Amino acid sequence: MKTVYFDNAATTQIRSEVINKMTEVMRNDYGNASSSHSFGRSSKSLIENSRKAIASYLNVSAGEIVFTSGGTEADNLVLQSVVRDLKVKHIITSKIEHHAILHTIEQLEKEYDLAISYVNVDKTGTIDYAHLEELLDISKKTLVSLMHINNEIGNILDIKRVAGLCKDKDALFHSDTVQSVGHYALDLQEVQLDFLAVAAHKFHGPKGVGFAFIRKNSGLKPLIFGGEQERGLRAGTESVHNIVGIEEALKHAYDNLDKESAYVRSLKQYFIEQLKLKIPLIKFNGNSGDMDKGTYTLVNVCLPVSPEKASMLLFQLDLKGIACSKGSACQSGSSKGSHVLAEILSDEDLSKPSIRFSFSIYNTKDEVDYVINVLNELITSSLN
Amino acid sequence: MKTVYFDNAATTQIRSEVINKMTEVMRNDYGNASSSHSFGRSSKSLIENSRKAIASYLNVSAGEIVFTSGGTEADNLVLQSVVRDLKVKHIITSKIEHHAILHTIEQLEKEYDLAISYVNVDKTGTIDYAHLEELLDISKKTLVSLMHINNEIGNILDIKRVAGLCKDKDALFHSDTVQSVGHYALDLQEVQLDFLAVAAHKFHGPKGVGFAFIRKNSGLKPLIFGGEQERGLRAGTESVHNIVGIEEALKHAYDNLDKESAYVRSLKQYFIEQLKLKIPLIKFNGNSGDMDKGTYTLVNVCLPVSPEKASMLLFQLDLKGIACSKGSACQSGSSKGSHVLAEILSDEDLSKPSIRFSFSIYNTKDEVDYVINVLNELITSSLN
Ligand SMILES: Cc1ncc(COP(=O)(O)O)c(C=O)c1O
Ligand SMILES: Cc1ncc(COP(=O)(O)O)c(C=O)c1O
Repeated sequence: MKTVYFDNAATTQIRSEVINKMTEVMRNDYGNASSSHSFGRSSKSLIENSRKAIASYLNVSAGEIVFTSGGTEADNLVLQSVVRDLKVKHIITSKIEHHAILHTIEQLEKEYDLAISYVNVDKTGTIDYAHLEELLDISKKTLVSLMHINNEIGNILDIKRVAGLCKDKDALFHSDTVQSVGHYALDLQEVQLDFLAVAAHKFHGPKGVGFAFIRKNSGLKPLIFGGEQERGLRAGTESVHNIVGIEEALKHAYDNLDKESAYVRSLKQYFIEQLKLKIPLIKFNGNSGDMDKGTYTLVNVCLPVSPEKASMLLFQLDLKGIACSKGSACQSGSSKGSHVLAEILSDEDLSKPSIRFSFSIYNTKDEVDYVINVLNELITSSLN
Repeated sequence: MKTVYFDNAATTQIRSEVINKMTEVMRNDYGNASSSHSFGRSSKSLIENSRKAIASYLNVSAGEIVFTSGGTEADNLVLQSVVRDLKVKHIITSKIEHHAILHTIEQLEKEYDLAISYVNVDKTGTIDYAHLEELLDISKKTLVSLMHINNEIGNILDIKRVAGLCKDKDALFHSDTVQSVGHYALDLQEVQLDFLAVAAHKFHGPKGVGFAFIRKNSGLKPLIFGGEQERGLRAGTESVHNIVGIEEALKHAYDNLDKESAYVRSLKQYFIEQLKLKIPLIKFNGNSGDMDKGTYTLVNVCLPVSPEKASMLLFQLDLKGIACSKGSACQSGSSKGSHVLAEILSDEDLSKPSIRFSFSIYNTKDEVDYVINVLNELITSSLN
């Protein structure tokens, strides 16, 4: 059967160069990076070289990169420690953050003396920067946690602006950049945020590895205690192959960024044009229909289908070999609808099926044509 | 250069079957296990089949296995949640536990109203079971955390006995089984403990994956919050290749347990015999010289070398291509000596070099001969 993978915001196909490197490491470099003998030193140097390379892509120093088991752990490491160890008393975030942020904050709210403010977002999911500024005018030790690129609707935050606002008001700034690192260049000397979270599997790297950027002298403490790995910030024997994998993936992503992002952007552009042409009643959620305000990697659309037919749609797409996402795939096991769309859509639009299509370098224009045709057929037949 | 890897308690060479399986998964099954389409379902079923298989090796149900990024995270998940969520007020442990236990408990002690008791160990590192029973006679909600096999000296705890004591006194029992699962069969219907922690890289699996066994209806909550993965107990996109890797490694370990453990045991036996013969002044730390009271995988010896020469010894072994460990390699970056040996050795013995040699199926009798010869030479020359 023909299959089309349009769910690259959920996870991506791993680059074969990445798999090859990882396999090589698993075969040849099995020492524990904490061991002082040659086997250990060789693993250690693989890790430290990966760290250095990654630091250079973001223009930070190697000591500011802490490897984790993924984006969620990196988010948790930052959020839990700023509250527990830095005594942050106020977190400003938004209702359209990923659950790795929202559920962690909810947990912290139960445990600590902590106020949570949610910055307003409009019906396109755009942050109200004036409101953010107002919220920052509070004399409590504050962390702002706002994602760079929204994983469901693709909205791009002006992180430089937010970083500036936070600096002005002496607030810490964490950004979940899981959907942006590897897709956009980031210079952290220019964007003065304090923390960010990254996951390899969003840019053709392996699942189960990521990192936190933690600006020097932050005072953060571990989430996971034990050995002195990661300069005492993250205990546990390092997953050397995964760490080498994230570096290799990020290297390819940034080496080829211009060419590859232009290609993926052209696919999205074509997808949008075709959608508008073939399904004129379609609506674009958030800023995902805007080539500048939304990331070039995804489109989130509200389809003109009656509520009764809605539930069948994803199922039918799956039968046709098309992988895409209702809301966000990161919400494992949950049958609930998207909390992001719930925040920004009208009740009427919420009753219709919304679908996220997300693209990568491994997709083609032919695949777009196929998906558009299938969608058109399904919608036309379900409209009747 | 000839190399001999005798540091298998730090980490092990990955079985090629495991690498092959993982590589295959990375190439072909890149869906996010949380996605409902065919790519996602295929990742999901890889994970759930791994979970089922692992559960069957330990005779528990699949829902009781929670995949983590390793042994340290599994220890942290259990310890942090029993205190935060189950309101445990008293932890009984020992001074010779791994830092994943000790440092986590120290952190919890700072944050919560929590009493810590350390059960006595004698100079062989053997737990004083009578003392444990006494300590259990306290009316606070209690968790006992004692490791099954000590990673430095190889002592084997009578976990069935401890589990029985805990049941009698209504205490919870967590065992760090990082050094035993994959090396010893464990039937958790027979041994009624509540929690255990496992790491794949100790039994020829990949680094950066492990699991916690968490007995049904435990009431534990996550350490890492976010998506609903792992039945809500561990958020984050699952490392499918690593999970398949741990299952494959455990399958081989248990399928071949009799044959392989007999082989490794014979290497240890031969190593001990040769040591006694060639270096009569050698001492065995803990119970590591005892084929029954210590695990068959390691030997920890105190060498008859003057303190001045001691520091050179590991370095010289490394120059000869021999990988072994001073204390435990899990203490990354730490130049401190072993907290385990500090607890059990006399000051005089502590001033001499102690080295852990740990074996696996990939070692040979020839390697033992080589190491014994090198050791003998180094010690004889350093004695003069
Ligand atoms: C914006 C965002 N943050 C965090 C995560 C969590 O990352 P991971 O699943 O690697 O832990 C994801 C996706 O899974 C995401 O899209
Ligand atoms: C007894 C014991 N517990 C816990 C750990 C930690 O496991 P990991 O490094 O996989 O997190 C180790 C070894 O590293 C160990 O030997």
